[in-house]
Amino acid sequence: MLWCFRYYCVSINHVPSVSLCVYDGAKENAVWVLLLQSATYGKVLVLDGVIQLTERDECAYQEMITHLPLSSIPNPKKVLVIGGGDGGVLREVGRHSSVEQIDICEIDKMVVDVSKQFFPEVAIGYQDPRVTLHIGDGVAFLKAVPKGTYDAVIVDSSDPIGPAQELFEKPFFQSVANALRPGGVVCTQAESIWLHMHIIEDIVSNCRQIFKGSVNYAWTTVPTYPSGVIGFMLCSTEGPSVDFKKPVSSIDTSTDYNKARGPLKFYNPEIHTAAFCLPAFAKKVIDAKAK
Amino acid sequence: MLWCFRYYCVSINHVPSVSLCVYDGAKENAVWVLLLQSATYGKVLVLDGVIQLTERDECAYQEMITHLPLSSIPNPKKVLVIGGGDGGVLREVGRHSSVEQIDICEIDKMVVDVSKQFFPEVAIGYQDPRVTLHIGDGVAFLKAVPKGTYDAVIVDSSDPIGPAQELFEKPFFQSVANALRPGGVVCTQAESIWLHMHIIEDIVSNCRQIFKGSVNYAWTTVPTYPSGVIGFMLCSTEGPSVDFKKPVSSIDTSTDYNKARGPLKFYNPEIHTAAFCLPAFAKKVIDAKAK
Repeated sequence: MLWCFRYYCVSINHVPSVSLCVYDGAKENAVWVLLLQSATYGKVLVLDGVIQLTERDECAYQEMITHLPLSSIPNPKKVLVIGGGDGGVLREVGRHSSVEQIDICEIDKMVVDVSKQFFPEVAIGYQDPRVTLHIGDGVAFLKAVPKGTYDAVIVDSSDPIGPAQELFEKPFFQSVANALRPGGVVCTQAESIWLHMHIIEDIVSNCRQIFKGSVNYAWTTVPTYPSGVIGFMLCSTEGPSVDFKKPVSSIDTSTDYNKARGPLKFYNPEIHTAAFCLPAFAKKVIDAKAK
Repeated sequence: MLWCFRYYCVSINHVPSVSLCVYDGAKENAVWVLLLQSATYGKVLVLDGVIQLTERDECAYQEMITHLPLSSIPNPKKVLVIGGGDGGVLREVGRHSSVEQIDICEIDKMVVDVSKQFFPEVAIGYQDPRVTLHIGDGVAFLKAVPKGTYDAVIVDSSDPIGPAQELFEKPFFQSVANALRPGGVVCTQAESIWLHMHIIEDIVSNCRQIFKGSVNYAWTTVPTYPSGVIGFMLCSTEGPSVDFKKPVSSIDTSTDYNKARGPLKFYNPEIHTAAFCLPAFAKKVIDAKAK
């Protein structure tokens, strides 16, 4: 692998940054990887021009996309992550001591390599012996999963415009539903209530048709994402009922897994429940589609 | 008054904008007023380089800073607004039909004029016959207020670095406490949990010393503010107890006042309660100082 380094200046939310540009010159159709150093947000990972994570605020995204689904069911054992190549979701899944198997399917090995090199506190997730990494297309991977395999699926995808578009469409959600056991749960990245209500409306509508259990929308603050917030679509399959708004399990901070990962920075049971409270303008649209 | 217009391009959170620059060339030591037109956020008001409000997301700030305090006490009658010259807080205070008197003390008449000219849906607050505008220094105004005058004080200030610094210090909070009736409430703009924890820590600590009732911190999303969130310090004086987390009054949308103002866009009782749920990193610091 070749690394090319360049230095220049940019700003993120008014904060001057010095950047270090890195890319894989050896790969055809390469993802453009940009690594920035921000005074406020620490190291910043940018893929194809879109901020993926920063050291300062990655905790909010990784902890919420993981613990919202996993704390909503008792004793999750088998978990699948689609995307999430940086390893941050793996780090958080690993906090759940009931978990026995963590599969991850990431389409781009480059993301894994960059994260391991530059974001060791995120990529620490890969050190978990319960993790198996599959490099490949998540859509194809899911189609091959035997029915009812997983307790939870977490879809840590990029935006629905471009390569990740399929991950927001009905056939994909149908594959997720098939891969889940009865009463299993999915949590998928679901855009910003400030910027993408028309996309969210479609996602909620598609999910309501596919998932016969609960269908809920939650959101959290992530300063360096567009509009500073990101949402999550949480659904369960027909089976034991899931009330996403009331977490049933809390993370045991005394386990060896958690000691290695350090304390939770963002998630707690109160913020879990609060995440499902929507501003009036979003509630009106989402509630209409979710019922 | 002279207006000077210039056009150029900027971007806000990656969204290209065309701007229209406006300033008061007749005024010495003028506040630099910049008016932008953003494709995503609509008209944007910038004072001395800091975004004050945008048409798209002003609802979140104005509704939360107003209804968090006013919905936490039964039948507020007399309300004082410090700052808030754009009129948005007045618009929201006016939704409470129990309110009989709304005083506002704004230091800069220019803000009022610009808002009336370019943000009529915000400045509509001034049309309320219960409103009296005082142009002057909020600190001096408050010192002259007879003890126990107001049910609620709302401090819609700029950041605590520069002219608004006094509004975050103990003598100011003492004046607010004096101006409130027993069990009266204050809500003051209180920075971002992502960027200003050291400032917030001091504010909470100062308020805990001055206000002998409740001392709570809440926050909300406002995309165009730094880090995309803004916090609020909510305190009550010794007297009838106030539980800010449980709103006791809801806004009667059928009154004439509310019909003129249109429906609430952001606030509802669920998001009121959720606003007090803090991420782990902020809860740890704030809870320690608030007790």
